Amino acid sequence: MTLSELVALALAEDLGPGDRTSEATIRPEVRATALLRARQDLVLSGVEAAREAFRQRGARYVPLADDGDALQDGDPVARIEGPLRGILEAERVALNFLMRLSGVATHTAAVVAASGGLRVVDTRKSTPLLRSLEKAAVRHGGGGNHRFGLFDGVLIKENHIVGAGGVTAAVRRARSSVHHLLKVQVEVETLSQLEEAIAAGVEAVLLDNMGDDAVRAAARLADGRVLLEVSGNMTAERAARLADSGIDQVSMGGLIHQARWVDLSLRVEQAS
Amino acid sequence: MTLSELVALALAEDLGPGDRTSEATIRPEVRATALLRARQDLVLSGVEAAREAFRQRGARYVPLADDGDALQDGDPVARIEGPLRGILEAERVALNFLMRLSGVATHTAAVVAASGGLRVVDTRKSTPLLRSLEKAAVRHGGGGNHRFGLFDGVLIKENHIVGAGGVTAAVRRARSSVHHLLKVQVEVETLSQLEEAIAAGVEAVLLDNMGDDAVRAAARLADGRVLLEVSGNMTAERAARLADSGIDQVSMGGLIHQARWVDLSLRVEQAS
Amino acid sequence: MTLSELVALALAEDLGPGDRTSEATIRPEVRATALLRARQDLVLSGVEAAREAFRQRGARYVPLADDGDALQDGDPVARIEGPLRGILEAERVALNFLMRLSGVATHTAAVVAASGGLRVVDTRKSTPLLRSLEKAAVRHGGGGNHRFGLFDGVLIKENHIVGAGGVTAAVRRARSSVHHLLKVQVEVETLSQLEEAIAAGVEAVLLDNMGDDAVRAAARLADGRVLLEVSGNMTAERAARLADSGIDQVSMGGLIHQARWVDLSLRVEQAS
Amino acid sequence: MTLSELVALALAEDLGPGDRTSEATIRPEVRATALLRARQDLVLSGVEAAREAFRQRGARYVPLADDGDALQDGDPVARIEGPLRGILEAERVALNFLMRLSGVATHTAAVVAASGGLRVVDTRKSTPLLRSLEKAAVRHGGGGNHRFGLFDGVLIKENHIVGAGGVTAAVRRARSSVHHLLKVQVEVETLSQLEEAIAAGVEAVLLDNMGDDAVRAAARLADGRVLLEVSGNMTAERAARLADSGIDQVSMGGLIHQARWVDLSLRVEQAS
Amino acid sequence: MTLSELVALALAEDLGPGDRTSEATIRPEVRATALLRARQDLVLSGVEAAREAFRQRGARYVPLADDGDALQDGDPVARIEGPLRGILEAERVALNFLMRLSGVATHTAAVVAASGGLRVVDTRKSTPLLRSLEKAAVRHGGGGNHRFGLFDGVLIKENHIVGAGGVTAAVRRARSSVHHLLKVQVEVETLSQLEEAIAAGVEAVLLDNMGDDAVRAAARLADGRVLLEVSGNMTAERAARLADSGIDQVSMGGLIHQARWVDLSLRVEQAS
Amino acid sequence: MTLSELVALALAEDLGPGDRTSEATIRPEVRATALLRARQDLVLSGVEAAREAFRQRGARYVPLADDGDALQDGDPVARIEGPLRGILEAERVALNFLMRLSGVATHTAAVVAASGGLRVVDTRKSTPLLRSLEKAAVRHGGGGNHRFGLFDGVLIKENHIVGAGGVTAAVRRARSSVHHLLKVQVEVETLSQLEEAIAAGVEAVLLDNMGDDAVRAAARLADGRVLLEVSGNMTAERAARLADSGIDQVSMGGLIHQARWVDLSLRVEQAS
Repeated sequence: MTLSELVALALAEDLGPGDRTSEATIRPEVRATALLRARQDLVLSGVEAAREAFRQRGARYVPLADDGDALQDGDPVARIEGPLRGILEAERVALNFLMRLSGVATHTAAVVAASGGLRVVDTRKSTPLLRSLEKAAVRHGGGGNHRFGLFDGVLIKENHIVGAGGVTAAVRRARSSVHHLLKVQVEVETLSQLEEAIAAGVEAVLLDNMGDDAVRAAARLADGRVLLEVSGNMTAERAARLADSGIDQVSMGGLIHQARWVDLSLRVEQAS
Repeated sequence: MTLSELVALALAEDLGPGDRTSEATIRPEVRATALLRARQDLVLSGVEAAREAFRQRGARYVPLADDGDALQDGDPVARIEGPLRGILEAERVALNFLMRLSGVATHTAAVVAASGGLRVVDTRKSTPLLRSLEKAAVRHGGGGNHRFGLFDGVLIKENHIVGAGGVTAAVRRARSSVHHLLKVQVEVETLSQLEEAIAAGVEAVLLDNMGDDAVRAAARLADGRVLLEVSGNMTAERAARLADSGIDQVSMGGLIHQARWVDLSLRVEQAS
Repeated sequence: MTLSELVALALAEDLGPGDRTSEATIRPEVRATALLRARQDLVLSGVEAAREAFRQRGARYVPLADDGDALQDGDPVARIEGPLRGILEAERVALNFLMRLSGVATHTAAVVAASGGLRVVDTRKSTPLLRSLEKAAVRHGGGGNHRFGLFDGVLIKENHIVGAGGVTAAVRRARSSVHHLLKVQVEVETLSQLEEAIAAGVEAVLLDNMGDDAVRAAARLADGRVLLEVSGNMTAERAARLADSGIDQVSMGGLIHQARWVDLSLRVEQAS
Repeated sequence: MTLSELVALALAEDLGPGDRTSEATIRPEVRATALLRARQDLVLSGVEAAREAFRQRGARYVPLADDGDALQDGDPVARIEGPLRGILEAERVALNFLMRLSGVATHTAAVVAASGGLRVVDTRKSTPLLRSLEKAAVRHGGGGNHRFGLFDGVLIKENHIVGAGGVTAAVRRARSSVHHLLKVQVEVETLSQLEEAIAAGVEAVLLDNMGDDAVRAAARLADGRVLLEVSGNMTAERAARLADSGIDQVSMGGLIHQARWVDLSLRVEQAS
Repeated sequence: MTLSELVALALAEDLGPGDRTSEATIRPEVRATALLRARQDLVLSGVEAAREAFRQRGARYVPLADDGDALQDGDPVARIEGPLRGILEAERVALNFLMRLSGVATHTAAVVAASGGLRVVDTRKSTPLLRSLEKAAVRHGGGGNHRFGLFDGVLIKENHIVGAGGVTAAVRRARSSVHHLLKVQVEVETLSQLEEAIAAGVEAVLLDNMGDDAVRAAARLADGRVLLEVSGNMTAERAARLADSGIDQVSMGGLIHQARWVDLSLRVEQAS
Repeated sequence: MTLSELVALALAEDLGPGDRTSEATIRPEVRATALLRARQDLVLSGVEAAREAFRQRGARYVPLADDGDALQDGDPVARIEGPLRGILEAERVALNFLMRLSGVATHTAAVVAASGGLRVVDTRKSTPLLRSLEKAAVRHGGGGNHRFGLFDGVLIKENHIVGAGGVTAAVRRARSSVHHLLKVQVEVETLSQLEEAIAAGVEAVLLDNMGDDAVRAAARLADGRVLLEVSGNMTAERAARLADSGIDQVSMGGLIHQARWVDLSLRVEQAS
């Protein structure tokens, strides 16, 4: 689904057969200018979706800030110009995208800032149909992305290991089955599993639900032979503690799913 | 968009051209059973979306709890049966719906419990494309719904008032324009606007950004002639304070947009 | 479905894999101007759909009359300019919209003119997929609209009353279930049902299949406490008889489904 | 667009985000049986669309009459069984299809009966998106079909003749351009045009807006060398007058666009 | 499906959630010009699809050759201008269309050149979803088209003959069932079947799997009363042998399905 | 697009508003059995698409051979059972998929057999909208796949190198931009570029348009530090020559785009 289709569906959800209030009270030829402002400190994300929402209702979104910009309470975000009816029809959808996505960027920025320099990436725990936008918001907040979906990376978990008959078999099957530009990662919970995975030729390992000491031992064992990622009960504080452990990254679904919306305001001035 | 179409798009987002890991490691004929459990206290929501996600990948979701049930950490949510590949392909999407929507229901239930019995309703600040599901989640949590979109209710705000040339003109235009089963509500910020709205024949009023004393004065002034709703900087605590003020309901976008995901686990047992 | 999507589907229905006649006989670069005229007295409706049909085939529709205008036989409706192939490809679809919708507007105008000033509204008996356009045509003809669909109003009929266990229970359930901007209307056939409905707090009543005397008695009984609508075997003549009865409106599915197409002609002049 | 997609769009148009009345008053587990009857003499059409509408809402349509059957006032049309909510959600859409399409079949049957045995066919003046169903309804009423759209037949009109530089050139271009299974028809208004068309090798001719005497002269001139169709101000009475003239068929857009809906009733009995 | 929708789906297939390489290495504001050239002798086809692919990614395709042009190795095909990212995102899709479709046109041109002047037409053996483009490519190569699909021509094969109870019955049913602008063709394998078909009033005959002598005998028997087409193990050489036999055309699925892609190159020069 | 949607579009392309021949000659209740056979030696591919095509028209495809099976002329492929109309409506679409895809599998198998054991993979030169099926066909023929699209692998070509300002910069940007499960490959034409790419930390290299000697020198230089792929004027013969050179794989667009359709026959026996 393209961004344009996504926004069209969101507008249809809100508009249904028509904006009854604006149809009744505003003549179609009235034009207006509106100013969008931050109402709290935030990292901005969602500009393209907002621009597209206004565009589809005949209005022009002139950005005064870009995705990834850190704004302070009161800072301008954009100016919108066009028919007043169109501006009001797109307002809620545009703001719903911006407030949600800037919420993710803002939350991610806070987590990243507290993580001691360790690379922090998201997961596939994202809002259905918004994954592309939410993963971009994570990047706008300074975080990194894990694979996008089930198709652009191999991540072997317990069920796959059982299905294949062991770590070694699972890794070999995966390596011979997928194309040469996809790496194979295995999720392990013990050091012996880690050893087996490395021996099987895996390129990355996910240390799941292991304590800090076990993580440090794993990093010493791996010694740079594979990329090491840690997940499970992860927080910024724990990430900071692990920053010097030798691991490569931590993954946190919460970058996306523990974020709350930020506050924005749209003030409309009627022009004619 | 039907629920079936929504779920199909969510699955396409995650699956793309294929689940590379499962294709490589699990034979297509392997079947499994999985148990879905709560990993925290929560109010459940999203059962139909989860059921549909598994159904579209050939698996059967047998509910062990219903939308609106209050569950405790460890309680079973559902048993899933079917091909292991199908279960793994649908797992993330199904859980993303359930964790998000149960998050809304759980947060709403907490807000409602703390609101002193006053009716608490949501707003149109909802995740694009998930409005129908999120508004159902609010009901599962014991909250109420405001209008669904721009089409099933008239809510006259400042821009409409300016567009029509005053509160009285806006209300009259709306009343004569929309069909007889839609009520007209006006957003006001002062008691004199409230008086004008009532005189114009409006059926509901939204008191926006007024202090507690002003709200109480408004309720005395309205004296039951119109439905009174209060919004703006609303919290459960404030709702509880206003419970005996004579207003009819408060609206809180945060029922939806301040909710965080709850935690659920899916444990798969391979059957053959 | 947006108007643009509706028109695209209609064009695809007529064009299929191509306009074989024009492909064979007209060179792609030939341009033309066409004049669209009324061939009978009519009230116009459907301008946006016609404009969109020509636009999608590369031609420009310049309106010479607006929706709601009363035209006489021979009056100009629009001038169309563009590639001759495009004009001929869109012609039938554009005219099918205009002739159908102007038929509804024209029929509605005649009914309204004969109804003695009583408000006349449509029903949900509309052509599948054309409801939004047909309801607009009713307005262009001077009629009013009933609710758009099952979602923007509550209309309790006999099956709902049985399902809920009586008029009072049905009204209370509806009132507590739907949001505060939707009114609740009940369909009744007797005065005692009307009394029960009013006592239950309903906001509108549909008097179905009641004789003129019963309607007058109902209006006296209701005495302005609820909105009163009359339907069933309704004609303009009967509406005129009931104009002074104290009811608020009559509903007539026939505004839409008894309308016949009006006649229009498109004369094309080739420019190059 | 398949019938299933058409019906799904029609249901979405009516249901939007939900049937607020049934949700409020009818428990989901209540089942019912309904009987659909004719409320006037009619020829039935639209059975598949009605069946599909009920099917998509979980109910079963058991036909008691088939498309093309001539029914009398009171005759049963179908029995519907299933969840009461589903029956009520599909009711209006199913009946809108049946009442519209049976209206076309009934009107066609009356025209055909009065046309003295001459073949009567429809045109492309059909309701956007319903052409396939309306053309089937014409057949159910005993009429015939003209080409479906611009793609399955060649019909050269005045603009094409001008574009190609004369009747002869237009016919030759068409004959050499389109595949061998499509016939070429030309619309003419004079006998000399008819002669030119026949000489050019056309396979069918449309005599447009010619008087009865001219039509008879044309039939004598053609003498069976081409198929002759007559259109323009056509009525059943005129068709009957021309039945022995030697022409092959008349075409009447009014079979479809002058038809009004027939009346049907659905009586629901709740089962549990 | 319109060409625009087809191209959008093709782009989505290749782009998925994003062009990871260009996103990483090319700044969005970089613009470029590219030159598309033939890398072998070929007949061009697919210009509209290529133009649309670049258009949808924001670039402009300026044609330097048209569909149907015979180009030599090294000849320019088009110049493309626009954002470099957009050019690279559309490149593969645009070339896949051009290389495939020019392959069909080039192969068809070779077959037609070797067929001794006999009309050569395609069949319904075409790539799913590309039929309209591939049939156009056949025309660009100098071939003709058979019917487009099952809907714009009647072709009675053995199963239809059995279903109807014989050639005569099948032809009569078809003639009375389909509209007057569709011709009826029958597939026969013997001269006696041919005689029966002609006697039944058929308008075209397909001689399937008959030897050269039988084909010549059939042509003498038919003597111009029906259109004669020959298919089955058809080659350009055999077509040339049959050119003077009196038949009207041969059909060859291989025009489309035995064609291989031609070679094209796109050389990009970055402008800024 | 799911396989089901792809097949539905293909059926719509062929069926349009209806199979005029079958509608006219075959009663809807007639059932039949059909046998699908190979008419040449081939490797089968496309079973799921064929099965789905028949399923969507109400018939059952019972496979007698699986994707990847090597069949001989005359071998059975499947038995199809169901309504005769449905079988004939799906026949062409099902066979078009099978003949195209088996053509790719068969051609791939021949190339692989002649390549001396070296891994042979496809490219993104595939038929628009059929990529998933054609890449599966390559696997069924014993070939391997390159990345699916622009999203599941990084392949840096000349334009990206220029855009980034050199090989080293391009590789570093890509490595820091994309997620950790995607490898980075660079296309090089000289040994010095290869050295730079390896030094920059790339994980795979594409040797484009280099002679055999240069390829062998590159393999010695790389010495296993990166995956080596060779492309450009590649043939099976050349692959066999390079089999012992130390490279990892060759890529050949021709696996897909130089394949021709295989021949299959469907013989229908009417059952009732």
